[in-house]
Amino acid sequence: MNIKALEKTALSIRALSMDAIQKANSGHPGICLGAAELGAVLYGEILRHDPSTPKWADRDRFILSAGHGSMFLYSLLYLAGYPGISMEDIKTFRQIGSHAAGHPEYGLIPGIEATTGPLGQGFAMSVGMAIAETMLAARFNTGKRKIIDHYTYVLAGDGCLMEGVSSEASSLAGHLGLGKLIVFYDYNKITIDGSTDLAFTEDTAKRYEAYGWQVLKGSMYDFEGIARLVAEAKADKERPCIIILTSIIGKGSPNKQGTADSHGAPLGAEELAAAKDALGIPEDFYVAPEAAAYFKGKQAEWKEARESWKAEFKAWSEENPEKRAEWDLFHAGKAVPARNPAFAVGDKLATRSAGNKALAAVAAANQNLVGGSADLKGPNAVGFAGGVYSAADRKGRYIHFGIREFAMAAISNGIQLHGGLRAFCSTFMVFGDYLRPALRLSALMKQPVIYVLTHDSIYVGEDGPTHQPVEHLASFRAMPGLRVLRPGDAEETAEAWSMAMERLEGPTVLGFTRQNLTVYPKDDPDWKNTIRTGAYVVKKAEGGKPDIVIIATGSEVGLSLEAAAKTGKKVQVVSMISRELFESQPAAIREALIPQGVRVICCEAGVKTGWERWAKPEDIFSLERFGDSGPANKVAEALGFTAAALAALIER
Amino acid sequence: MNIKALEKTALSIRALSMDAIQKANSGHPGICLGAAELGAVLYGEILRHDPSTPKWADRDRFILSAGHGSMFLYSLLYLAGYPGISMEDIKTFRQIGSHAAGHPEYGLIPGIEATTGPLGQGFAMSVGMAIAETMLAARFNTGKRKIIDHYTYVLAGDGCLMEGVSSEASSLAGHLGLGKLIVFYDYNKITIDGSTDLAFTEDTAKRYEAYGWQVLKGSMYDFEGIARLVAEAKADKERPCIIILTSIIGKGSPNKQGTADSHGAPLGAEELAAAKDALGIPEDFYVAPEAAAYFKGKQAEWKEARESWKAEFKAWSEENPEKRAEWDLFHAGKAVPARNPAFAVGDKLATRSAGNKALAAVAAANQNLVGGSADLKGPNAVGFAGGVYSAADRKGRYIHFGIREFAMAAISNGIQLHGGLRAFCSTFMVFGDYLRPALRLSALMKQPVIYVLTHDSIYVGEDGPTHQPVEHLASFRAMPGLRVLRPGDAEETAEAWSMAMERLEGPTVLGFTRQNLTVYPKDDPDWKNTIRTGAYVVKKAEGGKPDIVIIATGSEVGLSLEAAAKTGKKVQVVSMISRELFESQPAAIREALIPQGVRVICCEAGVKTGWERWAKPEDIFSLERFGDSGPANKVAEALGFTAAALAALIER
Repeated sequence: MNIKALEKTALSIRALSMDAIQKANSGHPGICLGAAELGAVLYGEILRHDPSTPKWADRDRFILSAGHGSMFLYSLLYLAGYPGISMEDIKTFRQIGSHAAGHPEYGLIPGIEATTGPLGQGFAMSVGMAIAETMLAARFNTGKRKIIDHYTYVLAGDGCLMEGVSSEASSLAGHLGLGKLIVFYDYNKITIDGSTDLAFTEDTAKRYEAYGWQVLKGSMYDFEGIARLVAEAKADKERPCIIILTSIIGKGSPNKQGTADSHGAPLGAEELAAAKDALGIPEDFYVAPEAAAYFKGKQAEWKEARESWKAEFKAWSEENPEKRAEWDLFHAGKAVPARNPAFAVGDKLATRSAGNKALAAVAAANQNLVGGSADLKGPNAVGFAGGVYSAADRKGRYIHFGIREFAMAAISNGIQLHGGLRAFCSTFMVFGDYLRPALRLSALMKQPVIYVLTHDSIYVGEDGPTHQPVEHLASFRAMPGLRVLRPGDAEETAEAWSMAMERLEGPTVLGFTRQNLTVYPKDDPDWKNTIRTGAYVVKKAEGGKPDIVIIATGSEVGLSLEAAAKTGKKVQVVSMISRELFESQPAAIREALIPQGVRVICCEAGVKTGWERWAKPEDIFSLERFGDSGPANKVAEALGFTAAALAALIER
Repeated sequence: MNIKALEKTALSIRALSMDAIQKANSGHPGICLGAAELGAVLYGEILRHDPSTPKWADRDRFILSAGHGSMFLYSLLYLAGYPGISMEDIKTFRQIGSHAAGHPEYGLIPGIEATTGPLGQGFAMSVGMAIAETMLAARFNTGKRKIIDHYTYVLAGDGCLMEGVSSEASSLAGHLGLGKLIVFYDYNKITIDGSTDLAFTEDTAKRYEAYGWQVLKGSMYDFEGIARLVAEAKADKERPCIIILTSIIGKGSPNKQGTADSHGAPLGAEELAAAKDALGIPEDFYVAPEAAAYFKGKQAEWKEARESWKAEFKAWSEENPEKRAEWDLFHAGKAVPARNPAFAVGDKLATRSAGNKALAAVAAANQNLVGGSADLKGPNAVGFAGGVYSAADRKGRYIHFGIREFAMAAISNGIQLHGGLRAFCSTFMVFGDYLRPALRLSALMKQPVIYVLTHDSIYVGEDGPTHQPVEHLASFRAMPGLRVLRPGDAEETAEAWSMAMERLEGPTVLGFTRQNLTVYPKDDPDWKNTIRTGAYVVKKAEGGKPDIVIIATGSEVGLSLEAAAKTGKKVQVVSMISRELFESQPAAIREALIPQGVRVICCEAGVKTGWERWAKPEDIFSLERFGDSGPANKVAEALGFTAAALAALIER
């Protein structure tokens, strides 16, 4: 181990970070300075990666869960020679157009494995990546050759460890025995407010032992010690490992190190000068020649490792053509069309149940689809043939996430980010709130995770308002990049699953009912295509131009058909499976379904928010309150949400 | 201890629960049957309460965190003689109009201390109640007399303990040394999906030791053992206690006990009959005479305890008239008007900073206001004179919640529910998603918790899209019962704090800026009253009737004034501090500000969702995408969100 080079690398991380943050007049020097030694040894000696091919499928993953330390990551990506990040980017840190954004943004440049910053989620995503590694290894490795065999490393701070999502993910990671997950805990005892003694005095080591983790301790400033600890972590193949590295936040800043002052603001010109002086940094945006030379020297070694893998992969491909074909399918970046289950007009079943049939078809056609539920396998109806994933069976595709919705979604993001697999997860729609921060990251990272959210309205019934979503559809639709699909019967449900699988540019929420719905006839003979615009005409008005168009979603399509039949009006009923998708269509498509000048009624068992675009407030048949506890139809009656009331509105 | 009576009480809990759930054809017998013995000894021997005065300020609190076991609670409230619940309610469990709702609903009947069902939150709310107890005790007790001196008990299941929110709350509870918090963990090793071995194999006892808790173990079916464990828990005054009670889910159901089948569905007629037979239950909705007699006998004892407290309280009141006056103020259920800080037109400051001045005034006038931030005291600007709450100083009013947003909000609900205190909490608006499930419970329980959410738009700047809310205002407004206030300058901010304090029927979100805003002149001389309708006219159109009304919120009011000044149009600018409040006004009030037939432009740095009511889609000046990383104004420019662009829209 070239200690001198590593020291100079750490120095360069400090130099680049301090200067970039100072120049941006914004950023978080604390962890960049405090964990610089780890960065050096991690990128120089520990990670099995090749910056010349950053997407190498079997690379080690590194996730900076403490995403505010973005300059830590950018410095290392720059020093290690990753494409996409230049000195100019670093000099324009946190400016529009720079690849060195405020927090690491997945997709902006290679080497950023996940968007981090919202604390705890990077940690949880890393658990997903480690799960994905075991799944792919089990599926593709042979006795002779290991095509997938990498580690997942994380750098987490006090904030990550305080967040509940990391607790959930850690408990599950321990349970699953993810031995190739290695978390470095930057144990500096400082947060924004000051000492962790203010709020965080638990025995974290003991907590991780309780989760079934291997717990190791060392110093952030001992290169060889860190390498030894990593070796020790690797030697324990059955437990994830947390390496608690005692550190000094802002190390190198003579007057601010060890204090909250160094956490989240530039050092200031004076302190910066003092730090440079103390550290012996001769110039702005300094890269020590020894560090540059060290990483230059590493390129061949890294390339060789990857070439060696490539040769192995080639040999494996030749020996296992079927596995190779499946590998290609897994990595093709698109879904295999499934043969949708068939339903008949008049069939009565909940869309969650129809969804289960569709899932069976989709999962059979797409062997790389994996996922599960937060302890609601039956209620969510998301069981499928494919075995249960566990420490004992890495080939299983169904994941028992436990009652941990937030970690479930973050882990799903991690599985999806890993590559090779398609992830879905499931809970009651009302608990979509529990996982919302991870859903937002799916959208922000454009990850096509599928969220199966059942029990999608007051028709949940007896469980009452805590379990009845009313504002959730509206709140989901407000999120940029998220697609919400709420099918109205079993046939639409099958299409919804297909649409979710087809969508690769972001996450999809599938909103399914608990209650039975009747499959209705569809006047649009081409509805399976039209529905991909977000809406189609289920029922044309008798005798031409309608008096009224009802836009309904999900279970309210059936309600609208029922109400329309009660009136003498010429009513056209539109099933709008996705409002945001429909709203993105050209005017001609929109107006074909909803002619201008015709009275529009919107009908959805939830708040009116967003429907104001389509109807006057008094023509929105909605629910502006929390639900009630009782049998589903009794709840609807109590809230005045009935076909009769809708018919009266139509007649008004 | 009358073991026989307790056994009969447990039997009655089983009988009532099984029958009610069977009759409702819906519910969760598992925990009701499995924890019946605890219920008996808890309500009979442990709780210091008086059903005849269920709101007794110094009663012990009991929170059923595993809210799906609602019949456990209803059975006990009924047996113990609480008002508001009758046999008829139990016989109509989970029906519209019954006081025995699907999950315990706070406010429906006395004795339900919190709405529970969303798992983990009851646990976290109990931490808030325990905090409140220590705060009030420190404030009001004297060396001579203890006016507040009660315990907070919780029944939690595997689900509660898997949820991250309970992890967060538990870590904080251990840190804070909440010695009077006692959690019973119904350790039955079964969840909906089956054995906890599927997903939850951590060493929970060890985890709680790591949090600094006292951990005790026993059997769910040992009355005297439970009482001894509680005594042991009470003896340790410095640590919260978790009592792990090994139990059998569905105990008493001969064929379903110990299995997931008993968790969440009625036993079924056959099994119900078998259970009744095995248990010796002679009739439907059976209450054993010994149990009835036992609780009848308890009434006098309970009344005596309360009368004794009352006498103590009277003596204390006489000895401490100032404390008593303060006590009355704390319990008056309304806010004391504060003297708002003064600002002048032209002052430039962030609304978070103005909010800090308002908070200072409000907190001085309302000594019962307590709260804090999730490690963002400085950035959220929520520090105030009042000391820091800690294990060493229970008089402190500022709470360092740590980086635990969800638990923070749930704990705030608990503090608020306790009575005597007013709670606020704070984080970045974008992390409002982390705490959203607790915000929903604030709204559902109609608790006036104040959420100070700063950094309310893309003007966060450099931190980038992970830290820039764009969909959050829309998603908050979609939630029934929640009021969102987004003031446009420092003066409005002071009013916003007043409005939040005045509002007692539910939670309020205060959305504050990171960036400086300039205090603008206000054309409505009565604006401080008008703003309480949700909106007022900041700037009238020159020369009478406007061509255009701009509705803006928060920082976009200033932007709109700037844009309006660039155009030749007669523009009226309305600051709509609360859209949902304004929309609830009579038409006359609405039309006074926004005359019918006038073109309306809405301007907000977030998604357009909901503004469609007020303007055509093309007249909504909004952001339909995630933000970007850069200095605030550069981000706005990059997104085309500028005064010039708005002026162009006005001119269009």
